Amino acid sequence: MSHQSIKEILNGKISLKHFSNYFANCAKHRQDNLIKPNGSLGKLEEYAIWMAGWQRTRTPTINNPLCLVFAANHGVANRGVSAYPQAVTGQMVKNFKEGGAAINQLCKLANVKLSVEPIELEKPTKDFSKESAMTLAETELAMQKGFDCVPNDIDLLILGEMGISNTSSATAISCALFNQKVDGWTGLGTGLKSKNLKKKISVITRGLALHGKKFDKVEKIFSAFGGREMAAIAGAIVAARLYGIPVLLDGFISTASAAPLTIFKKDILNHCLISHLSTEPGHLGIIRKLKKDPILNLKLRLGEASGAVIATMILKSAIVTHNGMSTFSEAKVSKKK
Amino acid sequence: MSHQSIKEILNGKISLKHFSNYFANCAKHRQDNLIKPNGSLGKLEEYAIWMAGWQRTRTPTINNPLCLVFAANHGVANRGVSAYPQAVTGQMVKNFKEGGAAINQLCKLANVKLSVEPIELEKPTKDFSKESAMTLAETELAMQKGFDCVPNDIDLLILGEMGISNTSSATAISCALFNQKVDGWTGLGTGLKSKNLKKKISVITRGLALHGKKFDKVEKIFSAFGGREMAAIAGAIVAARLYGIPVLLDGFISTASAAPLTIFKKDILNHCLISHLSTEPGHLGIIRKLKKDPILNLKLRLGEASGAVIATMILKSAIVTHNGMSTFSEAKVSKKK
Repeated sequence: MSHQSIKEILNGKISLKHFSNYFANCAKHRQDNLIKPNGSLGKLEEYAIWMAGWQRTRTPTINNPLCLVFAANHGVANRGVSAYPQAVTGQMVKNFKEGGAAINQLCKLANVKLSVEPIELEKPTKDFSKESAMTLAETELAMQKGFDCVPNDIDLLILGEMGISNTSSATAISCALFNQKVDGWTGLGTGLKSKNLKKKISVITRGLALHGKKFDKVEKIFSAFGGREMAAIAGAIVAARLYGIPVLLDGFISTASAAPLTIFKKDILNHCLISHLSTEPGHLGIIRKLKKDPILNLKLRLGEASGAVIATMILKSAIVTHNGMSTFSEAKVSKKK
Repeated sequence: MSHQSIKEILNGKISLKHFSNYFANCAKHRQDNLIKPNGSLGKLEEYAIWMAGWQRTRTPTINNPLCLVFAANHGVANRGVSAYPQAVTGQMVKNFKEGGAAINQLCKLANVKLSVEPIELEKPTKDFSKESAMTLAETELAMQKGFDCVPNDIDLLILGEMGISNTSSATAISCALFNQKVDGWTGLGTGLKSKNLKKKISVITRGLALHGKKFDKVEKIFSAFGGREMAAIAGAIVAARLYGIPVLLDGFISTASAAPLTIFKKDILNHCLISHLSTEPGHLGIIRKLKKDPILNLKLRLGEASGAVIATMILKSAIVTHNGMSTFSEAKVSKKK
């Protein structure tokens, strides 16, 4: 879909899109003239203005949104860190394609196109507590895969994932990136029994001891901890930034996949919103570090981009009010005293 | 639409619908077999089960939702307690009917039928800081109006309002009901300047001194403070309870309109959810007293049922996942280890 490579971008050779203050100001001006007290639509006003700035238009749209769900397998799954066997990743991908999963129902409801992208499911990453999850070359391939999945003509990119044991990778990455202790940021994932939580913490701790917490390149951190679906999410975020497409990240895994990009460029996630606050304890931690404010708090912990597709309807609410409401003068309503 | 009167119900002569534990349990059982870790859809699971219990079905629906927006005028508007002149109530009603308001765009997006119900706009309630806002007979008429607006064949009732100065009535009612001091629960409404907040507080305080804080009947508290749109919301809630229809309340005013019903029956609001947390300070106060948990927190303060219609899409998310997802056995996905 693109002839540009993630590598060239991460080497700083290609310039990325900036937020347009001009269009954001136009949108702000429109908001202030709509028939409502200023600010009374709260966050909806902020979202509409933010979308206008990234889409470089006075009247932002969500007419052509795409939800990408990346899936991959993790070697660390064999260490008893997850409540489900590794085979479930592939079974769920089949289910996504057959239309029986949560994400299928939500995409239909929100009128969002869904594309499921399994990445070498037959080739799990290595156990990161013993060795690097992937080579640098494999990492770049996965990032490029994510990058290439993003068309340049969509108006919103929604990102999610599926990968048994990926909360372990996500926790390791977050703890390395933000120099955190493992126990405070490790949760039960899809429903690990409490007695196995200790095991999970020790596996992640071993991984961090092996690979360290200092990474000067995005590729290196994914190479250490995996997984391919997470590297792909990072690649897709970069593609969206290249094209100026706003992004909705799902929960803990998606946010942890995005966060390493800040090694490359501090403001690289300005075109991304966090859809919801997951119940995984690490999520609140990363969100605070990234100074982001999640749109929803529904105590979700499913992944699959489920929270992000629900949040799409909040962004749509922002857009239909922004574009469709009358102004005070159009409606002949008295302005403020 | 109904030959029953709100008066007979408040006199305890007609029995109201109860939540069905049987159908809620059926729905819970279904949730636990859907292809997702138990509990991973968080609040969505709770909402689906709650809807099943009230709709008395295994598979709850939102196919025929109705949004009722009641509008009325307040005598206290002449006391400088609002940022907008009283005429705006009628102008906004016209705007609702012409399709230019926020609520019109949101109802279109969420596929919700909108019905706007102005109640005697030409006859504002009296200034509650000097006398009773309405007679008891007028109050009963307004409650009956709300009651009669609810058809028995809808599957969700969404309630909102429009009425310049009604944050003053709502604050007075809340402070009386929950025995609170006025200053902590009074906010800027649609955008009062801070210097006028003192004035608003003193008007409400005078009202409370005049009418007291003790009310043994729902009708009496609305009669003291108004307004007609708020009494109508209370009437509509009772009708929905009679028919077993779940209710989404909008923000501060709608919640303050619902709260007096607890004088009649402590659990009368069990079929109601609070859509969102308003920025009006009194809202958090009432919600805590009612032990409710708002679905959204988008810093809205517009009214018009805007937040409730947005929350409808969250309930729809709960319902499409509940009804549409495959079970583990249907999808042949491995269960938990």
